[in-house]
Amino acid sequence: MSNIREIAKRAGVGIATVSRYLNSNGYVKQQTAEKIQKAIDELNYVPNKHAKALFSSKSGAIGLITPSILNPYFSHWISEIGKDLRSKGFALIIFNSDDDPVKEAEAIQILREYRVEGLIVGRPQLVEEYANIGIPVVAFENRFPMDDLQNVSTVIADNCTGGKLAFEHLWDSGCRNILQIMGPSVFRATELRSEGFLRAAAAKGAKIELFQFDSEFDPQVDIEERLSGIDFCKYDGVFVFNDIAAAKVLQYLGENRIRVPQEIRVIGFDDNFVDKMLSPRLTTIRQSVEEAARICLDTLLQRVTKKKLPRVDVVFDVELVVRES
Amino acid sequence: MSNIREIAKRAGVGIATVSRYLNSNGYVKQQTAEKIQKAIDELNYVPNKHAKALFSSKSGAIGLITPSILNPYFSHWISEIGKDLRSKGFALIIFNSDDDPVKEAEAIQILREYRVEGLIVGRPQLVEEYANIGIPVVAFENRFPMDDLQNVSTVIADNCTGGKLAFEHLWDSGCRNILQIMGPSVFRATELRSEGFLRAAAAKGAKIELFQFDSEFDPQVDIEERLSGIDFCKYDGVFVFNDIAAAKVLQYLGENRIRVPQEIRVIGFDDNFVDKMLSPRLTTIRQSVEEAARICLDTLLQRVTKKKLPRVDVVFDVELVVRES
Repeated sequence: MSNIREIAKRAGVGIATVSRYLNSNGYVKQQTAEKIQKAIDELNYVPNKHAKALFSSKSGAIGLITPSILNPYFSHWISEIGKDLRSKGFALIIFNSDDDPVKEAEAIQILREYRVEGLIVGRPQLVEEYANIGIPVVAFENRFPMDDLQNVSTVIADNCTGGKLAFEHLWDSGCRNILQIMGPSVFRATELRSEGFLRAAAAKGAKIELFQFDSEFDPQVDIEERLSGIDFCKYDGVFVFNDIAAAKVLQYLGENRIRVPQEIRVIGFDDNFVDKMLSPRLTTIRQSVEEAARICLDTLLQRVTKKKLPRVDVVFDVELVVRES
Repeated sequence: MSNIREIAKRAGVGIATVSRYLNSNGYVKQQTAEKIQKAIDELNYVPNKHAKALFSSKSGAIGLITPSILNPYFSHWISEIGKDLRSKGFALIIFNSDDDPVKEAEAIQILREYRVEGLIVGRPQLVEEYANIGIPVVAFENRFPMDDLQNVSTVIADNCTGGKLAFEHLWDSGCRNILQIMGPSVFRATELRSEGFLRAAAAKGAKIELFQFDSEFDPQVDIEERLSGIDFCKYDGVFVFNDIAAAKVLQYLGENRIRVPQEIRVIGFDDNFVDKMLSPRLTTIRQSVEEAARICLDTLLQRVTKKKLPRVDVVFDVELVVRES
């Protein structure tokens, strides 16, 4: 494979000269330029992103770290972000962190080494690692401390209100023995959903029982294993922290012949595209994935292209979507 | 942001010398090395993947192009490929082509510029673009011409047998008015499924009606729009080219109060993790996603690390999974 060292050798010039020529950055004598171009043609050289990025610090790429490539909500979010990005002059480089802070740190490091021009990260667990990386970052679903991370903007749904709406839906539907299945405590957004839910419950004097998942979703993990500790017959309503987990709960209830919504109502959170494929179709709190993606991308690109904008913290609205569950 | 040019300037040496030092590639005088290291420390320099790749042609990264980030089968496939890759010394850089050959070509170009060491691509539509890119490629789901692409191995399920099994399941369940919903003709794997299905039908003298989808799956596309042209009451069995499309068909049948399997049986192809969440749970032909991912990765890594191995074409088995539909 040709590289600029070979071009330099063949043209009989220095590597830095070839670099100046390739990047139109600094003076190269006409005669030297011709020699370099001849070497490039002879070696069938492909412009090397590394070389461009190395000398110009513009890679033309945006990095994206998804916490879960298996959650349909995040798949859709990635798809929406990437949809028209090429027409805006950027490529999208995707990493999957699997909600593992070690993998998240590795992804940051690699994206940093590749000199991406901006970074969107879903549900980040790290904080300091995003400071001082010299590029704008947009964090979706987890808030950051306001003070010391001037390069990190945040985008988050109004999870607290969402939790409140979820409780009120169950309560207004007549549920009085309610279970809340909570997400892993590192998912800050699901913590906020829970806070809103419990606050609204307290206002009605309702007592809520709690059950906590230790991770989000893995198709290999048997639902039996996860949910068999819960006696669903005790409850007439359940709020599940997100829709992919709620889908698993619906599956479990179906397999155990517990009728939804007749015996127990189920409400999730997210509104992902699988919801409407389920039977009964899942009632949920919608945090519009199209809106989330659009805000994340717009926020980032403004900061990538105009550089000087201050960080922002965007909170967008949620709404109750009543289906069949 | 520091780069090797700044280091070179601060240390008072040439860029090529800094490069030799950073890559431990070639002689650098002890005194010069100390000057460079001092400059690196002072500038808080992060090792730059571009610089490493530029001079060593080893980026430590594997590229992956998925045809659809929305299809749960491919999400799971990506997740499985990436799961233990870091422990094998590689990062996984993911691109989503959306089954668009233009995006596929752009992804190849970018990955090539980044000097990835190998490439896995799902359902490729391009052919020549993979020739002579100087790295091993593994193509999943679409076959390539055997002769001229010595760097491209292929991994594909025995789709033809899968189609045959799908027909035999419907036939043996008593279906005699059968519809086949076919995938877009550029999906070579689904063409093979159809061939196997129709051949098995012909052997029984069964007449099959055909309907073709023009694209795979987009949550935004209304199923009503796609399926309302079909009079499902005419049929007692339907084979759908993959499971995410079959899930949409189940959803449509449910919304139109056509009972599955009492009035019509539905069988898909893939076995993705959503199948078991559906009601009724989807009967399908399994092409094990774990096996597909493992074979793709093993085939690629052997060629990345040992270089000289010839290309291979791997065909793996499928099996009927009878659930409720």
